[in-house]
Amino acid sequence: MGQGVQAGGPFARRSFLRFGAAAAGGAMLSRQARASAESAPPAEPDWSQTIGSSVVDRPYGKPSDFEKDVIRRDVPWLTATKESSVSFSPLQSMPGIITANGLFFERYHAGRADVDPRQHRLLIHGLVERPLVLTMDDVMRFPAVSRIHFIECPANGGMEWREAQLNSLQFTHGMIGCAEWTGVPLSTLLGEVGLKKEAKWVMVEGADGARMNRSLPLAKCLDDCLVVYGQNGEALRPEQGYPLRLLVPGWEGNVSVKWLRRIKVGDAPWFSREETSKYTELMPDGKARGFTWVNEAKSVITFPCPEKPVAAPGLYEIRGLAWSGHGKVKQVDVSVDGGINWQTAQLQEPILSKALTRFTLPWRWDGKQALLQSRAIDDTGYVQPTIAQLRKVRGTNPIYHNNSIQTWQVKPDGSVFDVQLG
Amino acid sequence: MGQGVQAGGPFARRSFLRFGAAAAGGAMLSRQARASAESAPPAEPDWSQTIGSSVVDRPYGKPSDFEKDVIRRDVPWLTATKESSVSFSPLQSMPGIITANGLFFERYHAGRADVDPRQHRLLIHGLVERPLVLTMDDVMRFPAVSRIHFIECPANGGMEWREAQLNSLQFTHGMIGCAEWTGVPLSTLLGEVGLKKEAKWVMVEGADGARMNRSLPLAKCLDDCLVVYGQNGEALRPEQGYPLRLLVPGWEGNVSVKWLRRIKVGDAPWFSREETSKYTELMPDGKARGFTWVNEAKSVITFPCPEKPVAAPGLYEIRGLAWSGHGKVKQVDVSVDGGINWQTAQLQEPILSKALTRFTLPWRWDGKQALLQSRAIDDTGYVQPTIAQLRKVRGTNPIYHNNSIQTWQVKPDGSVFDVQLG
Repeated sequence: MGQGVQAGGPFARRSFLRFGAAAAGGAMLSRQARASAESAPPAEPDWSQTIGSSVVDRPYGKPSDFEKDVIRRDVPWLTATKESSVSFSPLQSMPGIITANGLFFERYHAGRADVDPRQHRLLIHGLVERPLVLTMDDVMRFPAVSRIHFIECPANGGMEWREAQLNSLQFTHGMIGCAEWTGVPLSTLLGEVGLKKEAKWVMVEGADGARMNRSLPLAKCLDDCLVVYGQNGEALRPEQGYPLRLLVPGWEGNVSVKWLRRIKVGDAPWFSREETSKYTELMPDGKARGFTWVNEAKSVITFPCPEKPVAAPGLYEIRGLAWSGHGKVKQVDVSVDGGINWQTAQLQEPILSKALTRFTLPWRWDGKQALLQSRAIDDTGYVQPTIAQLRKVRGTNPIYHNNSIQTWQVKPDGSVFDVQLG
Repeated sequence: MGQGVQAGGPFARRSFLRFGAAAAGGAMLSRQARASAESAPPAEPDWSQTIGSSVVDRPYGKPSDFEKDVIRRDVPWLTATKESSVSFSPLQSMPGIITANGLFFERYHAGRADVDPRQHRLLIHGLVERPLVLTMDDVMRFPAVSRIHFIECPANGGMEWREAQLNSLQFTHGMIGCAEWTGVPLSTLLGEVGLKKEAKWVMVEGADGARMNRSLPLAKCLDDCLVVYGQNGEALRPEQGYPLRLLVPGWEGNVSVKWLRRIKVGDAPWFSREETSKYTELMPDGKARGFTWVNEAKSVITFPCPEKPVAAPGLYEIRGLAWSGHGKVKQVDVSVDGGINWQTAQLQEPILSKALTRFTLPWRWDGKQALLQSRAIDDTGYVQPTIAQLRKVRGTNPIYHNNSIQTWQVKPDGSVFDVQLG
């Protein structure tokens, strides 16, 4: 029964020998690993000789104190106030495709609103037959669906449009998260109120002090938008719009309006502040590119990265995340020489539409400089561009929708740096 | 564009008219919903007129204070001490299939161990060619996979073997959770150490004060077991075995040993305390049923339930969870008359192997007594049994593996009770 044992996953068939060989040389495993095992089992620590804590002392759990540095962080100089700022998720320490609710990135226009669900109301009006004001109980009584989707701020990577200035995965890519969202299809609510024939656009508005609002074409609202109250097995967090938010799968995060209080149906877009003076891009010819909704295919290597350097030469697994606002990730290619040669990475199941997808590739590091890149291709055939390709079309004015290929430079000492190639 | 709008999901095609009709009669929606919308928008609450909190005041998030009652709870009389007890998840308030890490049920044999990951070691020895002691860094360097699976304590429902005594979804079914787990396939680690020809069984042992240990057949270890360090996008919580646990997909929770410190390969089971005096079932003929690993197909209705009664006659969505330790849920049937008539429920995608699966069914409640039941069928063809069928085979001595059909009695006032039919 012990014959012919094979590992699953990307290292299948060739993995053991390679890992074994590396281990024998002390590269893959800690140098003490084999020696210790052959002498004696590990010493008995305190926690093996005592009774631990009880089930009733933590009715709502929290991470180990040893994980206290795995937190959201802000960039101090980014915005005028902390109430109109962003916190970035520590992608370098986050496994899988589901983002822990406690680490999901934040973006506020007027701070985090603390809303009482008993007082909260959702108004649906405009070009509808039967306007409605719904309580939270009303909303939760409609047929519910749960779907796994990412939300990414279009400014994710925005600080890197002109140069590589953030030596950090958390700050270059940390404005993205992926969760299982539960709520009511917006199409159900629009069906309930009844659309008038002239209906073509929908305005969604938040209950926060910014009264954040955006215009959405009716077709998207009827396609896959959800009015959401649940996230990863519990109520939405206040940071994510408790008790109610919109989710517009695959589109730039700000249209997924938080603390959702109003849905107005109309026949034209509203051209609100957040879709005219903000969330547009000044192009090289002086014109503004507006309504740039979709987050196109993008990927990033999460190990190695500046926060997670390489310890020593040897065999590693390059790991990363890929996503597309248009659908599923079809393929991810990885280069270790700055884009000259590419290898196809292994994708991790389940591969879901408009959701984060994990990719991995075995990599034997020889201790010389390496230039690591990943390139996502989605099921429309779209290929993630280089920053040079993006700049050629959009210039260097934009802040939003930088979905370019990230380059991590691995130096001979194993440290990793954020660089851009010419 | 506003013509012919249809909702997706289980209410498609027939939903709007039915909801509309119900709403017109004040049944589906709050009675004020339409009247309010036709007069004026809701008043402006405080949170719409002020600046909220900043991004830096909560580097690790938490739920809204308004959700303070959505917590894990214990049954005070269940165990001699709180350190050898269980906390139950509030399934009545939990959307989707992913269990929030803060609400995942707990089961301790000697309390919650607080382990320092820098000191933690995993020993792999016994009938192997090259024994190993691994640090956490070593473990995390191996090729990683992420998979969504449930963990259920076999005692879930154990207090109901003889009679319906817990009027609560949280306490009848709350010893189950489902998460995205990230770790190393156990097959990879066993490949790394090299199995000797005589290898047939594997003993896994925890680092807690109980030194919890169990025997597992080698075939299961080489199939789909994982050595896990990540849960839902962050490190395992201490409650779940931080920094390292085993995951044995589909099998009774206690074999997924937490705070995993040792894996020993042998040629026979160890017959440890937890598989002889505990986690066995005394059968009517006086013999003990042992090694009852698999959690067979099971389901439960999460709305309505004792904690979530029905407000008034009208149209509702019956909602529930189904799962099987053998694979995927193929079908769930729902009865509203105590098992006389059955309707097939809608299953929610994605349907994953050995994971929670959501089901829903529209239900128009006429205000009379109803007896709600759900019955899961998995892809092996196994059908969830009644409690009478289980008792006929196993008697009334057991505590473990009660996967019987749950009956919720809805009374004319809308209150819901835990009952067992004759």
